[in-house]
Amino acid sequence: MMRARVPLLLLLGILFLASLSVSFGIVHREHHESREEVSVLSGKNNPFYFNSDRWFRTLYRNELGRIRVLQRFDQRSKQMQNLENYRVVEFKSKPNTLLLPHHADADFLLVVLNGTAVLTLVNPDGRDSYILEQGHAQKIPAGTIFFLVNPDDNENLRIIKLAVPVNNPHRFQDFFLSSTEAQQSYLQGFSKNILEASFDSDIKEINRVLFGEEGQQQQGEESQQEGVFVELKREQIQELTKHAKSSSKKSLSSEDEPFNLRNQKPIYSNKFGKLYEITPEKNPQLKDLDVFLSSVDMKEGSLLLPHYNSKAMVILVINEGKANIELVGLREQEQQQQEQQEEMLEVQRYRAKVSKHDVFVIPAAYPVAINATSNLNFFAFGINAENNQRNFLAGEKDNVISEIPTEVLDLAFPAPGEKVEKLIEKQTGSHFVDAQPEEQQREEGPKGRKVHFVY
Amino acid sequence: MMRARVPLLLLLGILFLASLSVSFGIVHREHHESREEVSVLSGKNNPFYFNSDRWFRTLYRNELGRIRVLQRFDQRSKQMQNLENYRVVEFKSKPNTLLLPHHADADFLLVVLNGTAVLTLVNPDGRDSYILEQGHAQKIPAGTIFFLVNPDDNENLRIIKLAVPVNNPHRFQDFFLSSTEAQQSYLQGFSKNILEASFDSDIKEINRVLFGEEGQQQQGEESQQEGVFVELKREQIQELTKHAKSSSKKSLSSEDEPFNLRNQKPIYSNKFGKLYEITPEKNPQLKDLDVFLSSVDMKEGSLLLPHYNSKAMVILVINEGKANIELVGLREQEQQQQEQQEEMLEVQRYRAKVSKHDVFVIPAAYPVAINATSNLNFFAFGINAENNQRNFLAGEKDNVISEIPTEVLDLAFPAPGEKVEKLIEKQTGSHFVDAQPEEQQREEGPKGRKVHFVY
Amino acid sequence: MMRARVPLLLLLGILFLASLSVSFGIVHREHHESREEVSVLSGKNNPFYFNSDRWFRTLYRNELGRIRVLQRFDQRSKQMQNLENYRVVEFKSKPNTLLLPHHADADFLLVVLNGTAVLTLVNPDGRDSYILEQGHAQKIPAGTIFFLVNPDDNENLRIIKLAVPVNNPHRFQDFFLSSTEAQQSYLQGFSKNILEASFDSDIKEINRVLFGEEGQQQQGEESQQEGVFVELKREQIQELTKHAKSSSKKSLSSEDEPFNLRNQKPIYSNKFGKLYEITPEKNPQLKDLDVFLSSVDMKEGSLLLPHYNSKAMVILVINEGKANIELVGLREQEQQQQEQQEEMLEVQRYRAKVSKHDVFVIPAAYPVAINATSNLNFFAFGINAENNQRNFLAGEKDNVISEIPTEVLDLAFPAPGEKVEKLIEKQTGSHFVDAQPEEQQREEGPKGRKVHFVY
Repeated sequence: MMRARVPLLLLLGILFLASLSVSFGIVHREHHESREEVSVLSGKNNPFYFNSDRWFRTLYRNELGRIRVLQRFDQRSKQMQNLENYRVVEFKSKPNTLLLPHHADADFLLVVLNGTAVLTLVNPDGRDSYILEQGHAQKIPAGTIFFLVNPDDNENLRIIKLAVPVNNPHRFQDFFLSSTEAQQSYLQGFSKNILEASFDSDIKEINRVLFGEEGQQQQGEESQQEGVFVELKREQIQELTKHAKSSSKKSLSSEDEPFNLRNQKPIYSNKFGKLYEITPEKNPQLKDLDVFLSSVDMKEGSLLLPHYNSKAMVILVINEGKANIELVGLREQEQQQQEQQEEMLEVQRYRAKVSKHDVFVIPAAYPVAINATSNLNFFAFGINAENNQRNFLAGEKDNVISEIPTEVLDLAFPAPGEKVEKLIEKQTGSHFVDAQPEEQQREEGPKGRKVHFVY
Repeated sequence: MMRARVPLLLLLGILFLASLSVSFGIVHREHHESREEVSVLSGKNNPFYFNSDRWFRTLYRNELGRIRVLQRFDQRSKQMQNLENYRVVEFKSKPNTLLLPHHADADFLLVVLNGTAVLTLVNPDGRDSYILEQGHAQKIPAGTIFFLVNPDDNENLRIIKLAVPVNNPHRFQDFFLSSTEAQQSYLQGFSKNILEASFDSDIKEINRVLFGEEGQQQQGEESQQEGVFVELKREQIQELTKHAKSSSKKSLSSEDEPFNLRNQKPIYSNKFGKLYEITPEKNPQLKDLDVFLSSVDMKEGSLLLPHYNSKAMVILVINEGKANIELVGLREQEQQQQEQQEEMLEVQRYRAKVSKHDVFVIPAAYPVAINATSNLNFFAFGINAENNQRNFLAGEKDNVISEIPTEVLDLAFPAPGEKVEKLIEKQTGSHFVDAQPEEQQREEGPKGRKVHFVY
Repeated sequence: MMRARVPLLLLLGILFLASLSVSFGIVHREHHESREEVSVLSGKNNPFYFNSDRWFRTLYRNELGRIRVLQRFDQRSKQMQNLENYRVVEFKSKPNTLLLPHHADADFLLVVLNGTAVLTLVNPDGRDSYILEQGHAQKIPAGTIFFLVNPDDNENLRIIKLAVPVNNPHRFQDFFLSSTEAQQSYLQGFSKNILEASFDSDIKEINRVLFGEEGQQQQGEESQQEGVFVELKREQIQELTKHAKSSSKKSLSSEDEPFNLRNQKPIYSNKFGKLYEITPEKNPQLKDLDVFLSSVDMKEGSLLLPHYNSKAMVILVINEGKANIELVGLREQEQQQQEQQEEMLEVQRYRAKVSKHDVFVIPAAYPVAINATSNLNFFAFGINAENNQRNFLAGEKDNVISEIPTEVLDLAFPAPGEKVEKLIEKQTGSHFVDAQPEEQQREEGPKGRKVHFVY
């Protein structure tokens, strides 16, 4: 007994130290030739970066498809506490497949990242089918039964959903009609008596038709599906697709129908990149959720200039390619106090090398810059979007710093106001620029190969 | 000292085990002839069932009446977390009584379950009195002083209130003007100086008129009331009732006046049952609270067919009779993981035998069926009600399953699509049906007595 | 090892007792000649009273100014839980100073308490400057860069801000463009590569112009500012003020411009005091935040009669003078149960002697009276303000008790209804009255000096 106590105290001590190192992360400091050093959080210590391999939990999976849900935002950092009512769900299915009909206790905003989907929404008074392609979006109201077909013969379908649960801030459940080897039909939850009265039939008949009986599989007919994704034959796809409406020519604001993020003019566009966006003001489904949607294409070696969103919290989902993201916040007061009271308030750089399927969160008002290290495409959900404004901190257009009067620049920065203005005006590009303008000049010539900086 | 430590560790161990058994409940499993067994939670392990004897806390009580408040929903299950801002209050008073004037830091939605009430709302610019009967409802805005008369000579008055607190999500307080033996007048909270200046009178006079002095009761006059319910004489009732407006002929949408849940056509009606409902779209008081109200009558032996609400969380209050309720959810992931990773996702049946005054919560999207085991009447508050849709899973009308295309039914269920459709179409009733159609046929004859299944 | 365990257990015991005494406060009881005693919480045991010296935390401070934030409301008492999304910020600056440009992840509602401010809001498409004087208010939307000038040669500027954070319910951060000795520029958070590409310039030039290099201060030029408040010369003030719009003649409801709390008629006014108020119904900036603003002047020795707000939670900020505040709530149930079950429900007086810069919170529906013990001026933010109604409990006008019918008064109070009415009607003043009417009569004569009661 006496010996047992020492390890217990030791264990408590270790747990305490471990909790400290988890909550404060591991910090290194960077000097970059100015008088101040900067604290940097990267990799898994960067709470805004959700690596696709690490932070998703698989809900359903068979050889035909997979559904995964991202960890709760509010559990990674209090700086995202107000995202506590939002979850992100990723869906992937192989060609010629069906996701079986189900409903959930959450509103979904669904966006097609890759491939083609035939989405059918079922209501007591009828059903609607829509053909959705990359960049098409659709709200699925809580409780609506839906099923999803990937009608393509070759291409995988990849969908990302923003989920807003209704019974609990962060939890939701999928209610499937069918029993498969992966889950039970919710109809099976009712007792024999309720089922017999509801269907006016004998329980044996109900079991045979809806749930599959014990002995069935030996008989080799009418077997249960292996999972919630099932294979479709060409005729079945044709049957399920023939009444589907294509949304490609729909007007942007039709109340209940899908809308296409990319059939409008991009709001920013040049040779380095394009940004498409639909705001709540333009679409009733988005207004209802107070969400904006954007889609960004960037060329390899380009930079989305430093900027911040005035009030929206933005959830990026990387669809194709790689990028380095730098996000700037302020060091947590707890950290400050941990080290020394009355210390200078320091900025905190959060950096991440993101790639396909990763998620990154940009809190409102936090400055961010994105450098595409390959050709890049990402989608974004902006939460709390109404009247949000994107304020750029560099570049010619939409640059908020260039609107500060010279007298104030003079007082705010060490150099005279005119010199500050000259520096601000030197960048003649806007929104998207070349990430290595100096190197380009230096390296233009026989080599011609761009070298991307690596963290 | 050495001995003390062992019990401490033991105690911690026991507490740990106890917390496990509380949070996971006690589960039994039912087989009903299909290949899958179903997990069932009932009695006090069913977190959606609030037995009237167990889960109410008495706020005020004397021989003339009683006010009770239901335990917080969010403390029983995280599956009702989003009901955390709502409380349910039950009020009962004897014939010829008055509930003394008071206000509260909560909005109330009041519904008369039984008897007649004369409700008076007092504002600085006047007062309004309304005669309310069974099924009448009225919003009492936070901070409004009101008093309630039961003017009937014989019948008890029973009222249920939905409370939405304003200072705290789940707590509210009643501020009574009068001091009784049960509680103090809030005016008594002010000091002598404030009271004297406010009423421009001496404290002795104020005490004598408003609070009652120490020696009074010996003098046998002007004694303090025993509690917040007081007896009324016939003349007093006539006086208090004579300016009251009857709401029975009022239009449904008059801004501030009571509305009658049962003076419209029921939305579902047949020989087995009727469902009356007023939605936020139809009434400004309900729109303000985003609540729907319904009232249901069911005959003994009838079944409200399996269905779910698309987005509303519904709080049932049983007014008369008995019923068996089956609610279907999915087993908690913690439970799943407790037992075995990668196990099949199982459904969970929550069942309850409810009777008079019990409360039952139906989360959004959770399928439910209600079997009346005697003639039954219940009321319901639907929270998050705007655009809610009731989706039936059986029966001819409003059946969402019957809108799923045959090809999908074919893939979703073990039997061929046509057989599934045939099963779904066999039930020719809608909404309310006979709970024992088979037994009825078998037992029709000299006996004619219905046998209700018992859990 | 054996010895260490005893102090550990002792320590746990002490912590437990300490937590009890903190949560229940220290209570004394007052008898004031009626049969009931009243529980009184005052000083630091009164959770609604925030002494200026104790409950603010300094964010920035140098010899030219200071910014402080008030402790979280929800951490002091659960009775203010629904204020959890609101913070109060106090700002003070010396004459001829500038608060450097910055933005925050919070909406601000700014009110000038003393002095003159020139507020400039900067957006990518331009900037607007406004001259604000005492009682002027302006919403600063989250993410908007702003700077503040105190243009006066003599007077300090004092501002109070209500903050509504966007990323987290209670935390927000200020993002400053400049690096000073107190904090770093957020631009410094970006790496060398991002900065060079963004400004199309060499990092040495960027450091020199924006951040100040290591060797600079020795060279005696272009030195860094000492803190976020900096001194202005007369010419700089003239330059920064010349395009500023004065809001003094603006209409009340202009969408985005400052509004003046005191350029309208007061809603209550007599020789003892005046109350000015702008409600959400009258101003779009306030409607957006669901906040009312009021400003109250009271003469020494006057009383704001007992009243309560029907649904708004009110945050008072004392600007000038002193007052005694009495707030009436009900004793916490935990306290009740701590002592004895089934005890009478008791009222709880919360009293405070407030002075300059103190903050006091009045929950919705809680009765309150304010006695000015010197000439007094205070501002108030009303949260959850739409359709709020102020119900007076004494005085001629807006007195809700005077609308209760005589028959009910008769039953509610120990004296006959007519005597109660007589008492209620004795006070012929309204809203603001003399706090010592009796004493005044007694003491009128050669002395003529008012004696204020002291707690």
